[in-house]
Amino acid sequence: MSMTPPRTLRDVAAALGLEPPAQDLPIAALNTVDEAGPDELTFLANDRYALRLKSSRAGAALVPADFAGEAPMPLLRTPRPRIAFAQLLALFHPPRARRTGRHPTAIVAESASVGANVGLGAYVVVGENVRIGDGTTLHPHVVVYDDVTIGKDCEIHSHVSLREGISLGDRVSVHNGTVIGADGFGFEPDERGHLLKVPQVGTVRIDDDVEIQANSCVDRAALGATIVGTGTKIDNLAQIAHGCVVGKHAVICGQVGLAGSSIVGDHAMMGGQSASAGHIVIGARAKVAAQSGAMFDVPDGTEVGGSPAIPVKDALRAALFLPQLPDIARRLKKLERAFAKDQDA
Amino acid sequence: MSMTPPRTLRDVAAALGLEPPAQDLPIAALNTVDEAGPDELTFLANDRYALRLKSSRAGAALVPADFAGEAPMPLLRTPRPRIAFAQLLALFHPPRARRTGRHPTAIVAESASVGANVGLGAYVVVGENVRIGDGTTLHPHVVVYDDVTIGKDCEIHSHVSLREGISLGDRVSVHNGTVIGADGFGFEPDERGHLLKVPQVGTVRIDDDVEIQANSCVDRAALGATIVGTGTKIDNLAQIAHGCVVGKHAVICGQVGLAGSSIVGDHAMMGGQSASAGHIVIGARAKVAAQSGAMFDVPDGTEVGGSPAIPVKDALRAALFLPQLPDIARRLKKLERAFAKDQDA
Amino acid sequence: MSMTPPRTLRDVAAALGLEPPAQDLPIAALNTVDEAGPDELTFLANDRYALRLKSSRAGAALVPADFAGEAPMPLLRTPRPRIAFAQLLALFHPPRARRTGRHPTAIVAESASVGANVGLGAYVVVGENVRIGDGTTLHPHVVVYDDVTIGKDCEIHSHVSLREGISLGDRVSVHNGTVIGADGFGFEPDERGHLLKVPQVGTVRIDDDVEIQANSCVDRAALGATIVGTGTKIDNLAQIAHGCVVGKHAVICGQVGLAGSSIVGDHAMMGGQSASAGHIVIGARAKVAAQSGAMFDVPDGTEVGGSPAIPVKDALRAALFLPQLPDIARRLKKLERAFAKDQDA
Repeated sequence: MSMTPPRTLRDVAAALGLEPPAQDLPIAALNTVDEAGPDELTFLANDRYALRLKSSRAGAALVPADFAGEAPMPLLRTPRPRIAFAQLLALFHPPRARRTGRHPTAIVAESASVGANVGLGAYVVVGENVRIGDGTTLHPHVVVYDDVTIGKDCEIHSHVSLREGISLGDRVSVHNGTVIGADGFGFEPDERGHLLKVPQVGTVRIDDDVEIQANSCVDRAALGATIVGTGTKIDNLAQIAHGCVVGKHAVICGQVGLAGSSIVGDHAMMGGQSASAGHIVIGARAKVAAQSGAMFDVPDGTEVGGSPAIPVKDALRAALFLPQLPDIARRLKKLERAFAKDQDA
Repeated sequence: MSMTPPRTLRDVAAALGLEPPAQDLPIAALNTVDEAGPDELTFLANDRYALRLKSSRAGAALVPADFAGEAPMPLLRTPRPRIAFAQLLALFHPPRARRTGRHPTAIVAESASVGANVGLGAYVVVGENVRIGDGTTLHPHVVVYDDVTIGKDCEIHSHVSLREGISLGDRVSVHNGTVIGADGFGFEPDERGHLLKVPQVGTVRIDDDVEIQANSCVDRAALGATIVGTGTKIDNLAQIAHGCVVGKHAVICGQVGLAGSSIVGDHAMMGGQSASAGHIVIGARAKVAAQSGAMFDVPDGTEVGGSPAIPVKDALRAALFLPQLPDIARRLKKLERAFAKDQDA
Repeated sequence: MSMTPPRTLRDVAAALGLEPPAQDLPIAALNTVDEAGPDELTFLANDRYALRLKSSRAGAALVPADFAGEAPMPLLRTPRPRIAFAQLLALFHPPRARRTGRHPTAIVAESASVGANVGLGAYVVVGENVRIGDGTTLHPHVVVYDDVTIGKDCEIHSHVSLREGISLGDRVSVHNGTVIGADGFGFEPDERGHLLKVPQVGTVRIDDDVEIQANSCVDRAALGATIVGTGTKIDNLAQIAHGCVVGKHAVICGQVGLAGSSIVGDHAMMGGQSASAGHIVIGARAKVAAQSGAMFDVPDGTEVGGSPAIPVKDALRAALFLPQLPDIARRLKKLERAFAKDQDA
């Protein structure tokens, strides 16, 4: 795909590899269906919003290939309008120019090895024996402890701490304030109930194409490594405890908590504020609903909800009947009495 | 109100615009009803604590205007003792002197515009085209990315990151470690289930008089703006996802999670660890109880609880009956059997 | 215990004060039961894993004194294998050498008092009247506001903010990004519903041997002090609100939220994502299960679960029956109808 922003609807179609539209018009920007104006392109992700498209002022719209509704503007049809729209966003909003070079206030240990075309922002601190791959950016105020390995084309935002010995793959993004490799939470009570620290001598390995949002924590393992697999995305304020192994292309939403040594399968999805107990397995393509707590293994491809979590359909049906519980209790008691009376009679 | 701390009970009454007390006495400090000594003033927020006031050693007490109980010390009556006490705290504990001027280690882009009487602490980094209003303080180690606008009389604490292009109104306080404007969590799976990043090209707008506590995250919108309205207060470790619109004078307690594009009305209250699903509306003056999860719209002025959330009275009543559920199941089975036997007979 | 790593099984036994084993062999490292090789020592914490020990390739194993199972390798018996293993981890992985001395970029107020053998990392900022005890380490980018007291042999990691006037005891560890002493969340609505800030003029006191993991928040009290008692451990992303008093040797797991003025007793345990309502007492040695919410006092030594929390056995039994609720509702209705029909007949 060209990196010049498209200027007309035909440019857009060409950029996406779609049929050129019968009618052309200037496209200055992208916008939501409600906010878009006559020189803007919008998109319809699913038919639920078809009515809003009908009243939209957008100049043109991306719609699913099988879209059958009416619309007052020219349409571009594509099998995956969301994907196409994401690609267009990248074209219309090219990323800001990276700053390369080492800011004079960046402190880099002599034993560190820094690749080509790396950007080291103001007040960055890079410890001993750190390796940083080509094309990586460390924004101001990133702190990299000793013996860390950072791959190529990574972007690490301000106030991130990368702790001793951890490693990041290529094209890893870490947003502000996230901490990778702080000690796992391991203590053993002695006979007085005083808590003896279990030294956390393991590490963390973050694989390629992972993105971790802001203020999250991925703890180092007690022994071995805490692992986040290729392509996985972790939202803000998530807690990945020591020894967890998160698979590839998984989605960990905001404020999720994975207890120690949890395993999360490839393409699994943990909803916001959900959690896993320690030492359990969330299967591949499994889903844990928001706010729920998986206490036991979740089989591949299944979806659980509730706390403790059960199959999500059961959880939702039970939730539906929950408000009736006081009435059920009352009616049962009444029936018991009536039956007893009937028996006595 | 004068900024000199009051020294006697009459000074206190004068500062609050209340009737002078019959009896005067020195007041050296403010304290809680249990801890206050003979030269300290305490307050009674509601009649529940009247007994504790009776045994308090406080020299004097602020009480509600209609307080009918007994108390061993002189009383000042006011319709809102909590408000009056908060005002007195500000008088007895004037804020620490602000440091103005630019610390020699603060790095400020030449294109940035810095108002009068601004304080820029050690190791502050201010990017290109940033505008900072008069009287604002940036504590040490604040990082301001390019194109940010900060209003007048703001206070931004250490280790806060303000990301590219976001804006803060006047008198905004942001506590340590909070991140405003990191990318929203937007990814689209392609046909292999790999997650394509949806560029987050929107921004964040924080309006006047907002206070955000420590280590919270307000994400930038995918398109348009994530908004936090005038006077709203957000506690620690809260997550405001991309595209949320929080109204005016709302209260977002600690560890709350708002999923993408949630709308929270004016004066609404989200209890600690509560959450909203994406794209829903929490109405004006609505309340979401602690730990509950609003999956659907919450009408104005109503209160919900539970996960998924239902009207809070229903949730509490159901919770009350929940421990009886095993017994209900057992009794129902017994009754079914007895009835069947009776029918057979 | 000597600080030289043991090299053989006899060295290990000697270091732990155990009987020398009949058979000696070289021990190069420690590892988990599944990962350990022939020159590595593993441990068996409880009999549940006895089968895995049987198939382990480990050269030797630490087992409970009363272990009765079979194992293919030499065994060292000890009453507390977990404690012994933690002690060995410390021997095999001596902590990295601390950096002492003041990095030239550390900014320390002249009025600050810094003990002997203190390490102040790059870009550390230390405010007025701060006192730092002997042997304490501040990693790069720690910010210490004015009037803070830090004890001896503390370790404070990068991007920690210690706010004005708070105090830490001796041997306190604080991991990256944690904020101690930010304002409590105190606001009073005025007659228009605008939120007036209640000045938070109290402080925080962290006692000896406390460890707080990453990105947690301990707020300053409105009046008086928020306290964390000796030996207590707090995991990542926890929220300790203003005025809380946490006892000694308590365990606060990840993402726990303590609302204002909660009291947590000695040796109490709060599971991950659990919470307390404000002004309640969690008793000594009490346990609050993961994700549950204590709305009322929890007596000493008891365990609660659910939200709102009830005795944990009741909560688990109710959860077990919850999926039956729709069926119970249906059967009750059926029985009511059958009984009514029977009565009519």
